[in-house]
Amino acid sequence: MANCEIIATGTELLLGYVVNTHPNYIAPRLGSLGIRVTRIVTVGDDRQAMADAVSQALQRADLVIVTGGLGPTSDDVTRDVVAELLGRRLREDKKVLAKIKVRFRVRRVRMPKAIAVQAQVPEGARVLPNDHGTAPGLAMEAEVEPEEKVSLLREPLPVKYGVLQRLVVLLPGPPRELQPMFDNHVMPLLRARGYATPAVCRVLRTVGVGESWVAEMVESLVKGRRDVELGYCARPNEVDVRLITRGPGAVKLADELEARMRARLGDIIFGGENDRLEDVVVRELIRWKRTLATAESCTGGLLASRITNVSGSSGVFMEGIVCYSNEAKMRDVGVRAKALKTHGAVSRPVARELAEGIRRRVGTDFGIGITGIAGPTGGTPKKPVGLVFIALAGPRGTEVRRMICRYDREAFKFVATQTALDMVRRALRVS
Amino acid sequence: MANCEIIATGTELLLGYVVNTHPNYIAPRLGSLGIRVTRIVTVGDDRQAMADAVSQALQRADLVIVTGGLGPTSDDVTRDVVAELLGRRLREDKKVLAKIKVRFRVRRVRMPKAIAVQAQVPEGARVLPNDHGTAPGLAMEAEVEPEEKVSLLREPLPVKYGVLQRLVVLLPGPPRELQPMFDNHVMPLLRARGYATPAVCRVLRTVGVGESWVAEMVESLVKGRRDVELGYCARPNEVDVRLITRGPGAVKLADELEARMRARLGDIIFGGENDRLEDVVVRELIRWKRTLATAESCTGGLLASRITNVSGSSGVFMEGIVCYSNEAKMRDVGVRAKALKTHGAVSRPVARELAEGIRRRVGTDFGIGITGIAGPTGGTPKKPVGLVFIALAGPRGTEVRRMICRYDREAFKFVATQTALDMVRRALRVS
Repeated sequence: MANCEIIATGTELLLGYVVNTHPNYIAPRLGSLGIRVTRIVTVGDDRQAMADAVSQALQRADLVIVTGGLGPTSDDVTRDVVAELLGRRLREDKKVLAKIKVRFRVRRVRMPKAIAVQAQVPEGARVLPNDHGTAPGLAMEAEVEPEEKVSLLREPLPVKYGVLQRLVVLLPGPPRELQPMFDNHVMPLLRARGYATPAVCRVLRTVGVGESWVAEMVESLVKGRRDVELGYCARPNEVDVRLITRGPGAVKLADELEARMRARLGDIIFGGENDRLEDVVVRELIRWKRTLATAESCTGGLLASRITNVSGSSGVFMEGIVCYSNEAKMRDVGVRAKALKTHGAVSRPVARELAEGIRRRVGTDFGIGITGIAGPTGGTPKKPVGLVFIALAGPRGTEVRRMICRYDREAFKFVATQTALDMVRRALRVS
Repeated sequence: MANCEIIATGTELLLGYVVNTHPNYIAPRLGSLGIRVTRIVTVGDDRQAMADAVSQALQRADLVIVTGGLGPTSDDVTRDVVAELLGRRLREDKKVLAKIKVRFRVRRVRMPKAIAVQAQVPEGARVLPNDHGTAPGLAMEAEVEPEEKVSLLREPLPVKYGVLQRLVVLLPGPPRELQPMFDNHVMPLLRARGYATPAVCRVLRTVGVGESWVAEMVESLVKGRRDVELGYCARPNEVDVRLITRGPGAVKLADELEARMRARLGDIIFGGENDRLEDVVVRELIRWKRTLATAESCTGGLLASRITNVSGSSGVFMEGIVCYSNEAKMRDVGVRAKALKTHGAVSRPVARELAEGIRRRVGTDFGIGITGIAGPTGGTPKKPVGLVFIALAGPRGTEVRRMICRYDREAFKFVATQTALDMVRRALRVS
């Protein structure tokens, strides 16, 4: 199965001023063709470093994509270096030069002489048109002699025989130039060259259970199998399980394994690849025609903000109160002064009164109340930092959960709101 | 001058599902010590690829930082591979294991046996404590024999003599674990080991003005100078200006240039490197003993959430109402039905009534009201998607700003809340 290395060039990437998002655009699209990205390298505007990265990539990958460095300045070394490495002469392409001149004429701007270097094309290269900038992309096939490699670890390396057939693609750095070029010219080229092998990818997103537990639940399904890959990606309170099958029968195998994984994971699965927990909850509220209001103290508005990030939430989310002070809890949510005095703001009874109070006041099906100690200060031995009570009041009564979330303030808020959202999700499952 | 290579590991990075932001955190901080990042490599959970990347990096860089792969699952190969490459045995560190056990005990969750592998420490390694996760970081010094390299281009390569002294640092993958560890343990270690060449770095953070304008305001100060670097980093509604001076006299020069930059940029500067706009606003509210309440519609709780992310905000932030429905605007903020009927919810008069209403009701010095159309749906020719009115009511009266923010929903919310926060900041400047 074909693999790819992506080489990005640019000092602004090495200085950390710009985030390299090219892999995030390119890799999933290659994945849909069954091409795996196996390495990503970022080098500066340095000829030796670029030559080294490209020549190594040609040893390891069927497809080598280089982004950036196609500009007109002396920092832009890609075209030159790759042409020299592959032993191709550069010649000025008249069509490309004419198109560049038109771009400047249309903007009524004089074309700096240096720009003409962007019309240099290596022998035998295919030009990939750039509709959003001056430098075209370039695609070249290359035959490469395999170098002998020694394994650095105890296990041996596979040996390669025969000349390696490679495809090298050079793309402009700015995302708004690279992205359309990739979709309109690179993807069709890859399909035409037969790079696509069927691969099936399924993602199950789970909530509330740690990564090692999730892995324990499913890894025996693929143990020792060479035709399946299982991967995990963990964030606070969420674990994605990613299944990839290949070859003939990939779909059938993916269906079978997905069904078995769902049976084992059960209701900790909340959605698929593009689902945030809030998307799923809002979707289910809309589906069951239920409404929601929230009374948050320590999560400070994050729960309301997450819900309102979802398009369509205005049909189901009526109001949120960030009752940061005890006065606000009493005046606007209806928590009794006695409860605050007897149990304290961070307590099971006050969480309950927040949820039931906001539900009654706004007149919604569900009300959520959250009260806790986000930290870093404010904890006591009896009520430590990280303590939080989350209550969900609904038609069938009120549920209150107690948790200790030891994170920095922002992760604490995220995990507490996750739990609140998950409680709504589960309550709707039994609707 | 010392250089660094960053190696990130993780299949989710190669699949393009997660953006690699570690260079963006690490590189500027290394830059302040005069350490340049010269290559960034991303590999998968593949032992051979990891070994290859690390061994090459050891040839090229004084400092090698590896991020990720310190988890407890079979995908996590970093510790093992690096230990094997450097010829170090792994031993279970009792202190580290005890600390991990405490984390699980406090949450009243059973510790999976597999987690114990995170307490394995290579011989001679320094443990870097992790206050936000289970796996500690590790730092090791290594002596490496230089390998002979052949130049791939016409120009020759410099030749190295003698054993290479290297520092290898392994850090956990999740940003909220890596970032504090880097600041609290890696930066001091680098300073103590003498990696810092005197370089002075000043960062001015500005709000509300585009990058090219900011650059125009200050670039003439450094034109043609070799002893100064000026860089810009832009996010929606914010531009950081970064000044780096080196060598003898670096401090004096930085002071002089910073003063001249401040004179030119004026009050678009809101803070320094570690200041978010909300940190500055809360600090100023505390300083001037002023209180604040918010009534947000389209920003859905993000404003309250940003304010409450700041430690100490409970002393100045009293309440926030997310009045997503018109009923909520009327019942809980006091907006008049007539205003809603005559002007519509998204209008200057309603924004004013939101700000003045919440200020009156909660009894704070300042009240903020925000109403707008976040999109993607809901726009009309007269009131397009992106239209937002932001009002600030205070002791000296009410200010209302009208903007059009054409972004996806989440960026719209961020920019609208930025503007609200900046209005408070400016109102406090004239306190």
